[in-house]
Amino acid sequence: MDETRKYHMPEGFLISTAEAAVKRPGRKDIAIIYSTVSAVASGVFTRNLVRAAPVVLDAERIKHGTGRAIVANSGNANACTGKRGMADAEKMSLAVADTLIIPDSEVFVASTGVIGTPLPLARMLPKIREAAGNIGNSTLLDAAHAIMTTDSFPKIASARFKVSGKDVTIAAVAKGAGMICPNMATMLCFILTDASITKDALDEALLYATEQSFNRITVDGDMSTNDTAIVLANGLAGNKAVHTGTKAFGVFKNALTGVLMSLAEMMVRDGEGATKVLKVLVKGAQSEEAALIFARAIANSLLVKTAVYGCDANWGRVIAAAGATGAAFDPDTVDIYFGKVKVVKNGLTTKKDAKAAIELKNSTVTLTIDLKMGKAAAQLMSCDLTEEYIKINAEYRT
Amino acid sequence: MDETRKYHMPEGFLISTAEAAVKRPGRKDIAIIYSTVSAVASGVFTRNLVRAAPVVLDAERIKHGTGRAIVANSGNANACTGKRGMADAEKMSLAVADTLIIPDSEVFVASTGVIGTPLPLARMLPKIREAAGNIGNSTLLDAAHAIMTTDSFPKIASARFKVSGKDVTIAAVAKGAGMICPNMATMLCFILTDASITKDALDEALLYATEQSFNRITVDGDMSTNDTAIVLANGLAGNKAVHTGTKAFGVFKNALTGVLMSLAEMMVRDGEGATKVLKVLVKGAQSEEAALIFARAIANSLLVKTAVYGCDANWGRVIAAAGATGAAFDPDTVDIYFGKVKVVKNGLTTKKDAKAAIELKNSTVTLTIDLKMGKAAAQLMSCDLTEEYIKINAEYRT
Repeated sequence: MDETRKYHMPEGFLISTAEAAVKRPGRKDIAIIYSTVSAVASGVFTRNLVRAAPVVLDAERIKHGTGRAIVANSGNANACTGKRGMADAEKMSLAVADTLIIPDSEVFVASTGVIGTPLPLARMLPKIREAAGNIGNSTLLDAAHAIMTTDSFPKIASARFKVSGKDVTIAAVAKGAGMICPNMATMLCFILTDASITKDALDEALLYATEQSFNRITVDGDMSTNDTAIVLANGLAGNKAVHTGTKAFGVFKNALTGVLMSLAEMMVRDGEGATKVLKVLVKGAQSEEAALIFARAIANSLLVKTAVYGCDANWGRVIAAAGATGAAFDPDTVDIYFGKVKVVKNGLTTKKDAKAAIELKNSTVTLTIDLKMGKAAAQLMSCDLTEEYIKINAEYRT
Repeated sequence: MDETRKYHMPEGFLISTAEAAVKRPGRKDIAIIYSTVSAVASGVFTRNLVRAAPVVLDAERIKHGTGRAIVANSGNANACTGKRGMADAEKMSLAVADTLIIPDSEVFVASTGVIGTPLPLARMLPKIREAAGNIGNSTLLDAAHAIMTTDSFPKIASARFKVSGKDVTIAAVAKGAGMICPNMATMLCFILTDASITKDALDEALLYATEQSFNRITVDGDMSTNDTAIVLANGLAGNKAVHTGTKAFGVFKNALTGVLMSLAEMMVRDGEGATKVLKVLVKGAQSEEAALIFARAIANSLLVKTAVYGCDANWGRVIAAAGATGAAFDPDTVDIYFGKVKVVKNGLTTKKDAKAAIELKNSTVTLTIDLKMGKAAAQLMSCDLTEEYIKINAEYRT
């Protein structure tokens, strides 16, 4: 994944990382992102009823609409930790705020890792203060490393484009490889941009971009307590402020969507134990919502995912998963393709399973289901399910 | 599973099995069950929109309310096989009807195995005729063997009880080890009884018993195109006919439920690759429906199932799965137990994860979630998820 090493960096952001041995020693597990000026802030969070302490804190703070810093740790999710967890999240933000002399209400907190164990704050706070004091000691790629848990590679993406004659840059890091399902994932994503943009426009762009990216991937159908995507827009690019409904807004929104889609694809590619990416495209649906229902059922089916792993063009499992949704379609008009090989025509085999199996040896497999009922389509990104997934998750805490 | 070898057999049923090399040679893969007199018949079938040909046929034929025989094959599900599939299912029933000189409308057909490939009928029909001609050549246990696919042991259960002073017997065979989810499974279940019972009473008892048994187990969350449970009640026990609302009905219904629950537990125990049974009991819910929503989400969570496999009392994954349902509960009042060890009290760890891990080494693990919101409860049976499940399903067709 050497291509992830090259990225554009927006103006006015400083990064620091530290090793606090949150879970165990030997790696950087604290990251601080700091904007040298106050930034417009927006965020989206897990829809899980059970929200980790930092998510509760951030969801409240994001309402103010501005932010200066993000402090994140890996190794411990600070979830299901009660009042102590809330106090701990606040203390993390205070350690950054006090050191950088900024309001703690403008510091966002993110944690990822094991659920239900209190943070080892005695170890963490001195390291957070030290890192904040040395702000600028690291790169954004270092931050991407520091937030990894079961990820096997750091996830970073960026875009540079013109707005009102000025160079505007978006750079983002993310983590997430399991517990990944539509409606976010065990994922953290921090997006930094020097764009000048209104709060409304930033909110709208972030919602759209996450819906098209993180909400359309699935690894194991599980939804995390800690999903967080936060964007800070500090305006240092000096462009004319971007408002909703303008051409500039379209440019920004598309660039942001592109960055988040890149990160989403990296997450799926890095799906725990995954050997290949599975793109499930449902077309010919009567609505995008209907297409998504089928795509989600197929992309989450263990039997489909294991067949893809085994290079078996087992379209029977695909059609069974579609049927199990209860959503309306006619099994006798469906066409199914693995890659470009049509394995089912009007609900019946074309006897090309062996040819399709060759397509399944690729590192990216597109599975297309044409319902022939309408013109709507939707795509979900998933991955295969392997013995390695089981190993990783049976041994995660031990 | 030697205890499955002993069973009571109801009066008036004859069994035959044959080897037709449906998928490959070397084992019996055809079973015929025949009642020497016409029997009251009832059935429940998959709710998957995509129904295999024999399911479509049986669902139509069961409306008549009587039956004489069942013919089943393993190795091929005769699903997604279009008009040819329907004609093939009818031909299977005709081969039995012609040989035994009974109406083909009273012959039910069941198929299980690979989806999307037409049945090798040229090989099968002579063997079906031969088996029907030799009816009585096999035991019900032989039939249990003949319908196995990925099952690692045959599934048979029975009950004998008194109705109006007469001995009444129920015996049933089932198959199913994967694609198992509430709303039935890739499962076939044939229930034979010599009870005299009305059609209404048989329907009501079967619905109740399947709801309490097969609809409360899950292996992988997938729902099959072929799920079928058929009961034939031939009345040869000579008891006074059982009507709904009577005490005798309660006795029959409970006995039937017990038999099907035994089979359901065998299926979960034999879940593809499973090393242990996971019973998820949600109590303190406001309604049984609400309890089932949580129980299903937890019992289907890959992260919970892999944690159970890894003997990790990872209650964080349990509470995250509950939260992801979107159904209302208060995470701060929840108690969670693995076996008898309370790992969470009012949403917080009791620091007994290590002690709970010992409970997880048992072959049956009960996970109890007390929501403390009401008095309703529901239990689902599931199993752990292992590397072996992946291996089985990545290689199923190859």
